[in-house]
Amino acid sequence: MNFVNDIIGAELKIFEKKFAESVKSETTSLDMIMKYIIKRKGKQLRPMFVFLSAKLHGEINESTYRAAALVELLHTATLVHDDVVDDSLERRGFFSINALWNKKIAVLVGDYLLSKGLLLATSNNDFRHLHILSDAVKQMSEGELLQLQKSRKLNLNEAIYFEIIRCKTASLLSSACAIGAYSTSKDETITEKMKLFGEKVGIAFQIKDDLFDYGKADIGKPTGNDIKEKKLTLPLFIP
Amino acid sequence: MNFVNDIIGAELKIFEKKFAESVKSETTSLDMIMKYIIKRKGKQLRPMFVFLSAKLHGEINESTYRAAALVELLHTATLVHDDVVDDSLERRGFFSINALWNKKIAVLVGDYLLSKGLLLATSNNDFRHLHILSDAVKQMSEGELLQLQKSRKLNLNEAIYFEIIRCKTASLLSSACAIGAYSTSKDETITEKMKLFGEKVGIAFQIKDDLFDYGKADIGKPTGNDIKEKKLTLPLFIP
Repeated sequence: MNFVNDIIGAELKIFEKKFAESVKSETTSLDMIMKYIIKRKGKQLRPMFVFLSAKLHGEINESTYRAAALVELLHTATLVHDDVVDDSLERRGFFSINALWNKKIAVLVGDYLLSKGLLLATSNNDFRHLHILSDAVKQMSEGELLQLQKSRKLNLNEAIYFEIIRCKTASLLSSACAIGAYSTSKDETITEKMKLFGEKVGIAFQIKDDLFDYGKADIGKPTGNDIKEKKLTLPLFIP
Repeated sequence: MNFVNDIIGAELKIFEKKFAESVKSETTSLDMIMKYIIKRKGKQLRPMFVFLSAKLHGEINESTYRAAALVELLHTATLVHDDVVDDSLERRGFFSINALWNKKIAVLVGDYLLSKGLLLATSNNDFRHLHILSDAVKQMSEGELLQLQKSRKLNLNEAIYFEIIRCKTASLLSSACAIGAYSTSKDETITEKMKLFGEKVGIAFQIKDDLFDYGKADIGKPTGNDIKEKKLTLPLFIP
């Protein structure tokens, strides 16, 4: 993604430092785990969307950096908790927190990351950001639960499929675009538009991910999992 | 606790309805789990502290009810997640969410409760409440992690014991008193004092709980667990 680097490469570098700063802890064992989490960081897709959406509408500022950190903290907390639930031992080519430490520690680490995000936002009066993101968290859990409910009964159709991926995947990306745009524009109409934009991108992303699950291409992770887990995705609704 | 009923009985009744309202979901399966959670409600100690602290400094109002709901939502989310981590099948004489449904659903339900709390606060501009409670969540996870770290190495002393119980138990009760008082007084000095009061109560509560673990009295839950889990508590530091 070299073109992204041209536009927001400098900001992403600064962000990395700020993010590491934001998760520090005085509890030694916790600080060690935080260092590990920072080391195995992913593509940082969500912060990227925050910065790109922000730059589109004004000058990137401190509240943009906090918005990016908030999204990434929330996202990381979710991943750490996901690995506990799925008993996954690996994440991004590194051991998971539950594998290296244990389940209990992993859940607490997730809670810690979440609280750090909340404190970062409430300490700086980023209430608009917090509201947008709380709604995303609600939608994510509702979407996942809807998917579990439907996969048990196998009574899914295309409309419900789109509702599920809108909630569970698109809502966070949508929020990332919204708070990025809000951080530089402070304009509700722009924020709403960027929220919709992020939603479409998120939906497209998930469709692609679901299609790949039925293919044989090397996509950097195992395929064929959806059908094993009885997750009905788009390919099954195409006549 | 009849004297409590005399003072805030009416408020607790109203609260029950408001709380049930605040966790409703349009996702059928989720709404069913919410009804179950409401049915097996506990002593509601934290909402009680919110209402008592509030009434001490003014007229109980809508923001007091939201403060009580926020604390209870956070507390319930924590309990649901705790049962997943500890593989507990029972809670308050009812089956746990992970026992009746499964681990994955239980983690999502915890996240949902948390997001509902955040939305309730951000939708109503209860930012002071949110800030106080985020700090409690951070302290709770840090306290638990410190305890795990120390129980592995068995190098605890009385000072660290008090630091642990201040974080993991007292911080939430302390926040409950603080936001209750703030909701009616809007006075930072009073809020700070009530926070300290709640902290002392929380510490006293945990000391009693830890002492009972070494006794044979019927306290409504099993005893002798701390020593099994290598948790060093106060009785071991008394010469």
